[in-house]
Amino acid sequence: MKQKEFHNLLSVDEAKKRFYSNIFKNPKGTEKINIDDSIGRILSTDITAKQDVPPFARSQRDGYAVIASDTFQADEENPVKLKLMSENISAGNSPKTPLKKACALRIATGAPIPRGANAVVIVEYCNESKGFIEVQSGVHPNENIMHAGEDVMQGEVVFRQGMRMTSCDLGVLAAIGVTQVDVFSTPKVAVISTGNELTPPGNRLTGAKIYDVNSAMIVGACKEYGAKAEFLGIAKDNEKEIETLLKKALKYDAVIISGGTSAGAGDLCYRVVDEMLTPGILVHGVAVKPGKPVVLAAHKKKPVVVLPGFPTSCIVMFNLFVKSVILSMCGKKEDTSSKIKAKCAVRYSSYEGRHEFVLSNIVKSKDTYYAYPVPKTSGAVTSFSSADGYIEVPEDIDYIEKDEDVDIVLLSDEVTVPDIVFIGSQCMGSDAALTILSKKSYLSRVINVGSTGGILACQRGEADICGTHLIDAKSGVYNIGFMDKELMLIRGYRRKQGIMFRKGCQHKTLGDFLRDNKLRLINRNTGSGTRVLFDMLLEDLKYKSDRKNIKGYDVESKSHNAVACAIASKKADWGIGICSAAKMYNLEFIDLRDEEYDFCIPKSRFKKESVREFISVLKSDEFKKSIEALVGFVVSDDIGEVIYG
Amino acid sequence: MKQKEFHNLLSVDEAKKRFYSNIFKNPKGTEKINIDDSIGRILSTDITAKQDVPPFARSQRDGYAVIASDTFQADEENPVKLKLMSENISAGNSPKTPLKKACALRIATGAPIPRGANAVVIVEYCNESKGFIEVQSGVHPNENIMHAGEDVMQGEVVFRQGMRMTSCDLGVLAAIGVTQVDVFSTPKVAVISTGNELTPPGNRLTGAKIYDVNSAMIVGACKEYGAKAEFLGIAKDNEKEIETLLKKALKYDAVIISGGTSAGAGDLCYRVVDEMLTPGILVHGVAVKPGKPVVLAAHKKKPVVVLPGFPTSCIVMFNLFVKSVILSMCGKKEDTSSKIKAKCAVRYSSYEGRHEFVLSNIVKSKDTYYAYPVPKTSGAVTSFSSADGYIEVPEDIDYIEKDEDVDIVLLSDEVTVPDIVFIGSQCMGSDAALTILSKKSYLSRVINVGSTGGILACQRGEADICGTHLIDAKSGVYNIGFMDKELMLIRGYRRKQGIMFRKGCQHKTLGDFLRDNKLRLINRNTGSGTRVLFDMLLEDLKYKSDRKNIKGYDVESKSHNAVACAIASKKADWGIGICSAAKMYNLEFIDLRDEEYDFCIPKSRFKKESVREFISVLKSDEFKKSIEALVGFVVSDDIGEVIYG
Repeated sequence: MKQKEFHNLLSVDEAKKRFYSNIFKNPKGTEKINIDDSIGRILSTDITAKQDVPPFARSQRDGYAVIASDTFQADEENPVKLKLMSENISAGNSPKTPLKKACALRIATGAPIPRGANAVVIVEYCNESKGFIEVQSGVHPNENIMHAGEDVMQGEVVFRQGMRMTSCDLGVLAAIGVTQVDVFSTPKVAVISTGNELTPPGNRLTGAKIYDVNSAMIVGACKEYGAKAEFLGIAKDNEKEIETLLKKALKYDAVIISGGTSAGAGDLCYRVVDEMLTPGILVHGVAVKPGKPVVLAAHKKKPVVVLPGFPTSCIVMFNLFVKSVILSMCGKKEDTSSKIKAKCAVRYSSYEGRHEFVLSNIVKSKDTYYAYPVPKTSGAVTSFSSADGYIEVPEDIDYIEKDEDVDIVLLSDEVTVPDIVFIGSQCMGSDAALTILSKKSYLSRVINVGSTGGILACQRGEADICGTHLIDAKSGVYNIGFMDKELMLIRGYRRKQGIMFRKGCQHKTLGDFLRDNKLRLINRNTGSGTRVLFDMLLEDLKYKSDRKNIKGYDVESKSHNAVACAIASKKADWGIGICSAAKMYNLEFIDLRDEEYDFCIPKSRFKKESVREFISVLKSDEFKKSIEALVGFVVSDDIGEVIYG
Repeated sequence: MKQKEFHNLLSVDEAKKRFYSNIFKNPKGTEKINIDDSIGRILSTDITAKQDVPPFARSQRDGYAVIASDTFQADEENPVKLKLMSENISAGNSPKTPLKKACALRIATGAPIPRGANAVVIVEYCNESKGFIEVQSGVHPNENIMHAGEDVMQGEVVFRQGMRMTSCDLGVLAAIGVTQVDVFSTPKVAVISTGNELTPPGNRLTGAKIYDVNSAMIVGACKEYGAKAEFLGIAKDNEKEIETLLKKALKYDAVIISGGTSAGAGDLCYRVVDEMLTPGILVHGVAVKPGKPVVLAAHKKKPVVVLPGFPTSCIVMFNLFVKSVILSMCGKKEDTSSKIKAKCAVRYSSYEGRHEFVLSNIVKSKDTYYAYPVPKTSGAVTSFSSADGYIEVPEDIDYIEKDEDVDIVLLSDEVTVPDIVFIGSQCMGSDAALTILSKKSYLSRVINVGSTGGILACQRGEADICGTHLIDAKSGVYNIGFMDKELMLIRGYRRKQGIMFRKGCQHKTLGDFLRDNKLRLINRNTGSGTRVLFDMLLEDLKYKSDRKNIKGYDVESKSHNAVACAIASKKADWGIGICSAAKMYNLEFIDLRDEEYDFCIPKSRFKKESVREFISVLKSDEFKKSIEALVGFVVSDDIGEVIYG
């Protein structure tokens, strides 16, 4: 079978031009809805007031309706005395008696101005007694009166077609008595996934199957931007199934298919699309990374898009080509608030000659956002879950300088920048601290990369806090030796590290496990404190040269829990980790060493409010209690104190 | 009756402290929902992966599974030849045959790596023929392979409590097979309006009634921030009705009442609230402007708030005291994106000794936002409909300097900054241009203040475009004489101005109308081109000194339509305006003068994309046709050309 390749990669601009000029992007129609349901929707007609606001001249304050000229002489020394007429004009009641010369009528805020009156003296400037008031300050004509139609006049256009409704606007509509509005109707998008390997989440995975990730994400993104999206199902890689679903999908206003766009042997999707549609495929392949194999097509002006199967490529291409179509079909325009201005926190080298979209985290420091490119491959779902958005790097740009200004296109309108970025060694203790912090409404982002990676992240300013338990092999001292002058170290707690394994195994020492060829290890990732400890212990046991022979030594996992879980589910037989993880998975545990788990903080972050709150959590009784509840954890006396820097 | 006054006004901080320490702000509970419905919701538990992602080692590319060491010698000059085994491993299928030494197996992206293989050579680096492949580039072990759990490992915490779900996150959940999540449940808020004067929108207004504005706005704002809000109805100003609704409301998680907080005679609301609740009112009156009479109360830790009846005060106090409670009850935290950094575009003097919230428009110029305080009274609904947010001015600040940096708190998450701010004279012609522009997805904000106000707004940089028809009384020339060196003038069109009146009146000249004492005029606002023309005509007729005797001279309306509408509905008998407005309302029209309606643009905005687009709309055939369709409009030959500046 011949492999199809992408010979004619278009630039992003060319691709957009070819796609957008062949589809109908405008709203499909309009609908009448109650104003209660209209927030975020777009008006399809101008709204003209059929009603004056206010409908009559009304008092703006509590006080007395008067004839202004009666009060002109009044001041505190020489108050003017006016006869108080008997009627009280309250809001909601029409005045019955006209105001007479040299008289006053009690009037409340919002009440209609009686005939004869042309001003209101506020209550604070009057003394009332025995049927008279003394006015201590003169008023000019119209003072404290709002005239009929002064706010909105009948016939005025209050809102214009294309406006996006907010809750405040509902107030204006209510004021002119409007209860329903015409808005652009919601476009209906059909979503299809293709691929023999896909199983719907919720079903059990078997064999070579994986869960269908893209449909949930695409349906969610369509909804987020205002469309109704319906998932029509998964088509296997055969023409018949794709055809059947596509036929159904073409009844919708737009079609988004994912998967089936690579040049692989099983990928028929683009052929079916090209055969079934008129004019068919407009763009097949764009000179971008990630997302090169994207397909942009049209059927009688209806947009049909085949997004790449890799989730990262899928979501980036959605944002690049589909989002503006969805917004436009809703009558909306691309929102500028979906971009954030940031500084690139590290120097970033781009792929040569490729228009690149670099997924990035956003970290806020004072009033500036910093972008940290996410170092992940396009197959990873975690690369976009930990990313807030992407930086666009045009093909003629080779690199972004450190601190260069960049625009981050947010992947979702719901993105919120965390208050604390915690990068380092995974620990149930630090998890507990962050949980207490989250109850105080401090949002944290946790990236488990091990102690070494966490300290590097602090040095680069990427992390606010790093949890670390790195032993210095020579001195046996934890953590302090790895600090530098930009970092501080805060005392944490002690944890028991040891060997985890399933019940039934009779080994007693590390040597027993290493000598048993039948057993398979699950190792920790390079740079984690546990891995450093393990390698140090191997060296002590003279295992340095032949550690590659340890079965499973190359299989790395990123956390204590993951190690325990792998052993409990028999994917491996033993591993190194903390006692509490072993207990959680009902494993046996042989004690190897007590270690110090401390917190490294960049000096520049020490005064940050959320960081100070984290430290005060460390010192709190609530946290100490939750640490002592963990098996093998001991609170240090000086927890929360600065021990370095 | 004694008037109650506010003797002990608290500061905002004191009020917040007293209120928040006496209420329970946390979420009321949790619920399990489908991930499709979870966007924008807040996770109430951590989510741990029960599934490795990927679940097996898989190929990242289309190519050939190989043993890496078989390829080490390969380069373009010396390709390595490997025997191609017969099986094609496609995504979704488990490999049946293990890979043999010096062999290769065809493998697709996403397919499981066969036993024996430890790398994938991509298809682009291989030539396939006659049962063999030639590898032109060596691969190292694990190249193009993603190992089981490399992305997410079973046991890993993927999301943490407190996280706000985005569409991308749905992809991660799908990847680990999760279809439902636990989120904080949605708080239920009861909304009540009070006041004898209130009528629900949709009903007919009678007598001294006005529409209830606040309930629609409060219900909308609660929904916008994540709560369910239910409007329980309008209570008249009597204890019984307020009591009945409040009793019902106390079954909800929070209660928001509006109106009934002034010191007026009819306002019982705060007394009922204080009597019925435990502990009752915590704060009555805060030293702010607007919003002073706000009441903050609690019933057994449940928040109960009485917001002022004036809509502007109501929405500002909602933002100040209620919004964070709603967000917090949803498990959310105050969003930093609801603030925009801007420069104050004009010097603003604050009220002495009052903590002030200054409603402001936001105008974007290049990358900077400028805030323009909205000059409106607190009774006006248009003051917050045209405002995007407010600037907070603490009580010890007397003024904000021009160009001083300020934070604008947005009144709604849905706020979008318009592309074009059009301030000036209302005209159906400019309306038509903006409608064409809105179809091209340029959002405009139109503020009708008349020609003079529009030119001033251009000089202050507040407007992008001003529509103007100002005649210079001496020369008789329109518009040009009012320009300065910072402004440009673009040619528009000609309109017929004249007298509008209802059919049946036999008057023929302006003098006839002025002499008829039975007729009532509706005038235009000071500074509008029509008003300038009218006053000029009066002067010609020697009406200068006694124009105050013209019945209705002091009643001003803001647009041609409003004038026509007032005459058609018999609120007035005659007025000055353009012919097309008269025809729209089926009125008679006597021609007075042809005038020039042109467009003034600040030079600094001339290159702005949306402004250029506006000018190209002026020159378009579509626009010319829509102008010619208006009665009494004539397109100028040089429409769209610069005639000054």
